[in-house]
Amino acid sequence: MEKKKNISMAVIKRLPKYHRYLSELLKNDVDRISSKELSEKIGFTASQIRQDLNCFGDFGQQGYGYNVRELYRQISNILGLTKEYDIVIIGAGNIGQAIANYNRFEKLGFVLKGIFDANPKLIGMKIRDIEIQDIDNLEGFLSQNSIDLGVICVPRVNAQKICTSLVNNNVKGIWNFAPVDLVVPEDVTIENVHLSESLLTLAYLLNERSEQE
Amino acid sequence: MEKKKNISMAVIKRLPKYHRYLSELLKNDVDRISSKELSEKIGFTASQIRQDLNCFGDFGQQGYGYNVRELYRQISNILGLTKEYDIVIIGAGNIGQAIANYNRFEKLGFVLKGIFDANPKLIGMKIRDIEIQDIDNLEGFLSQNSIDLGVICVPRVNAQKICTSLVNNNVKGIWNFAPVDLVVPEDVTIENVHLSESLLTLAYLLNERSEQE
Repeated sequence: MEKKKNISMAVIKRLPKYHRYLSELLKNDVDRISSKELSEKIGFTASQIRQDLNCFGDFGQQGYGYNVRELYRQISNILGLTKEYDIVIIGAGNIGQAIANYNRFEKLGFVLKGIFDANPKLIGMKIRDIEIQDIDNLEGFLSQNSIDLGVICVPRVNAQKICTSLVNNNVKGIWNFAPVDLVVPEDVTIENVHLSESLLTLAYLLNERSEQE
Repeated sequence: MEKKKNISMAVIKRLPKYHRYLSELLKNDVDRISSKELSEKIGFTASQIRQDLNCFGDFGQQGYGYNVRELYRQISNILGLTKEYDIVIIGAGNIGQAIANYNRFEKLGFVLKGIFDANPKLIGMKIRDIEIQDIDNLEGFLSQNSIDLGVICVPRVNAQKICTSLVNNNVKGIWNFAPVDLVVPEDVTIENVHLSESLLTLAYLLNERSEQE
């Protein structure tokens, strides 16, 4: 598979959605699908779909459509899901526990290796056979284990400090749930989930609509 | 304040970030700030900031910068945060509990009125003085209480059913955490938080970078 460079962020952001829909089609034993049928399901236009998938190679076949299993495999490959990622979660509050308990992530190849918290009430508790460790053990753990991804679920005041520990120990990917913009070196990738911002966007749209009525 | 119509989604998505940074400036007793200083903090260019804020009216003053309190007030107003939103959470698992426990949402005007779950072990438990109710009570509750926002934190197979109940009972805003694209009438606003998609985007970017090295 030849992969073109400089794929736009908009296309990249749509890939996981393709991945999710194709996985559902596979579960329902659908073998092939046209861009038109896929369009009806996923809500992008058929021409958008053809354009998106063309960025990564020649997947479709005129008059036949897409081979679902093959397209799923290719998109998994493009997304980097053909290998495993070892992850740690820092902060075992509700969000941290939710991530730890979400078994779909493990199926996708994200393997939980450690959970850390500062709260003595949580330390020693187990989530899916992984014991919550004292956050003071984090640096030691990272120096002895090669971790790909750190999930930051601590309060905002502590988030940068944790992020710096992760980065100093060669963690190259940060999934950040703290409502703060973390500073990292250029070779580290951050993906933020800022829940407040999502909620405020919803409030804006809701409010704007009610004004128009 | 005069509000221009047809603000682009990109601008709208940036407003909550302005709101968050201004709230931090206020906490630190900063009275005024230039677009250049704000730019250094928030990471958008100064010209982007001036352009964004111009969409909503004339906030800055040449040579003086922005009055932080006034700008915060105006952006709160634009976002619709000058009124309260009554919300219900459906699904009291980890994500539902995280949302229920997050007191910043209440400070922003989102008032939790009810939590619902199907799990007998959770029903009757209290989260911040709100008792988790049997999901069978949802429709009855909605018919007797005017609710603005429903937060869907149930497994994906149940999400559409819950969404339809909310919509049938006049809930106009849905904050959806289930990994599924819900179908709603045109006058209902949905904001999705699709965690898997966020994680897969991170994996893609991480993978792409390690290939380039």
